[in-house]
Amino acid sequence: MKFLNVKENGDYKLAVKHGESVVNLAGAAKELGITVPTSYSELLEQGPTAIANVADLLSSVSGQASYILSESEIDVGPAALPPAKVVCVGLNYLQHAIESGLPVPKEPLLFNKFDNAIAAHKQDVDISGLTQVDYESELAVVIGKQAKRVSTENALDYVLGYCNADDISEREMQFRTGQWMLGKSLDHFLPIGPYLVTTDEIPNPNDLTIKGWLNGELRQDSHTSDMIFSVAECISYISNVMTLKPGDIIITGTPFGVIFGMEEKVWMQPGDEYTVEIEGLGKLSNRMK
Amino acid sequence: MKFLNVKENGDYKLAVKHGESVVNLAGAAKELGITVPTSYSELLEQGPTAIANVADLLSSVSGQASYILSESEIDVGPAALPPAKVVCVGLNYLQHAIESGLPVPKEPLLFNKFDNAIAAHKQDVDISGLTQVDYESELAVVIGKQAKRVSTENALDYVLGYCNADDISEREMQFRTGQWMLGKSLDHFLPIGPYLVTTDEIPNPNDLTIKGWLNGELRQDSHTSDMIFSVAECISYISNVMTLKPGDIIITGTPFGVIFGMEEKVWMQPGDEYTVEIEGLGKLSNRMK
Repeated sequence: MKFLNVKENGDYKLAVKHGESVVNLAGAAKELGITVPTSYSELLEQGPTAIANVADLLSSVSGQASYILSESEIDVGPAALPPAKVVCVGLNYLQHAIESGLPVPKEPLLFNKFDNAIAAHKQDVDISGLTQVDYESELAVVIGKQAKRVSTENALDYVLGYCNADDISEREMQFRTGQWMLGKSLDHFLPIGPYLVTTDEIPNPNDLTIKGWLNGELRQDSHTSDMIFSVAECISYISNVMTLKPGDIIITGTPFGVIFGMEEKVWMQPGDEYTVEIEGLGKLSNRMK
Repeated sequence: MKFLNVKENGDYKLAVKHGESVVNLAGAAKELGITVPTSYSELLEQGPTAIANVADLLSSVSGQASYILSESEIDVGPAALPPAKVVCVGLNYLQHAIESGLPVPKEPLLFNKFDNAIAAHKQDVDISGLTQVDYESELAVVIGKQAKRVSTENALDYVLGYCNADDISEREMQFRTGQWMLGKSLDHFLPIGPYLVTTDEIPNPNDLTIKGWLNGELRQDSHTSDMIFSVAECISYISNVMTLKPGDIIITGTPFGVIFGMEEKVWMQPGDEYTVEIEGLGKLSNRMK
């Protein structure tokens, strides 16, 4: 199931992709008399029940109705709304660790982004005054229920769904003090979306192609099976350090092909557009401004 | 004005210190017919208006009433409830940078803690299985209104108040990968409180004594005037990178005297208690378990 947060009058309404259309859940629920989550926070609270109810509702949807929207006409918000935590796993693809000239981690290397970094599909990212802006295609994991000291075996049970993410990074700031956060958590430096795709559609998050294009030119072309630490291993490891809550986001590292790893570094400029496409998750595109 | 979050039936009620007592604001407002914030989120929304209204209310409080509580009898929660961001400034006192054997920062060195780290005065901190647990007395700043690219001159206008904080750190984990977060953001590794003391009582946050005791033995004894970057400089610098929102917390570095800086390192053990006392902010004590 593919959820979207549709921007409407300064607020977000939960919607779900249905064929080529998008169903506004509040509108559909009212008209069809079926109880479903109508906001992102309700989706987080209700979890699997919500997904089953939405499936029920979608089976009753047909033809045209006021709650059926065209995807091209909606104003899409971030697929996951600002959470308490954005935990980032660094250097989690071998070839990227090598291109970065940094040691290959022996266990997950964690850093953070804050809520201010979250941005939507197609939302412009202001990079004015910045000198070394780079892209990073990443698989984002949205946590569905509280996870504290969970095992690798059970870790995927705590996932609500997955999204494309672009872990935008300002490299001069990232390496200015040794602590990466500064160059990672600028406003809107984590576009995420367009969909939150629930686990029923992604049985194995480590079996997906992951690609990134700069202005249409293929820059990153890899597979999530190349992660050094699998999604389940990352969740388990993090949950042994800090309690994860519904809505928390983990981004799981970027593959080879970033600007920082190139001999000749031509950093992103206003006007550049980066697109992330992970198998089954749609395409996430954002223009720098 | 000194605010507290009092734990009651699994929820928090906003209260304010009044002489030797504590006034439950919801109860007092009802009885006295004066509108005041009754929750932490209302305090954040209302800001200076809230403080003026609470002052009004307190001027009407006298004698005994059901809303007047004894501080020793309440169950005190964290002085600042879990925010979107906890931005930490590292190595911000010269002698501490030197004792740590790390370079003295040329500009604020930032890292993070997450919401899961927040803990209350007197709340026990579980350190079982951890080997290198250290204390860090710090001045915490709670942001009162949205701050984006503010100048040093205006930065203190964006502060709601101040608290004692203990930036508890697990040193092996802090230095395991180079990124400090791992050893900084374990559950309850940021006790904060007991009060959120508003700016009317602290005109200059860089003119306060700051002390810390381990089991009653004075370990840290410094002054916030020794910060390399003042509170105003830290807020301005951070707000130029990321938009700060009401409720966000900045902890501003610890002075000399941590275990990590000692020749013979006797790390904290279950049963140890650390107490932080910054001038005007009360005393924050937490036992390790």
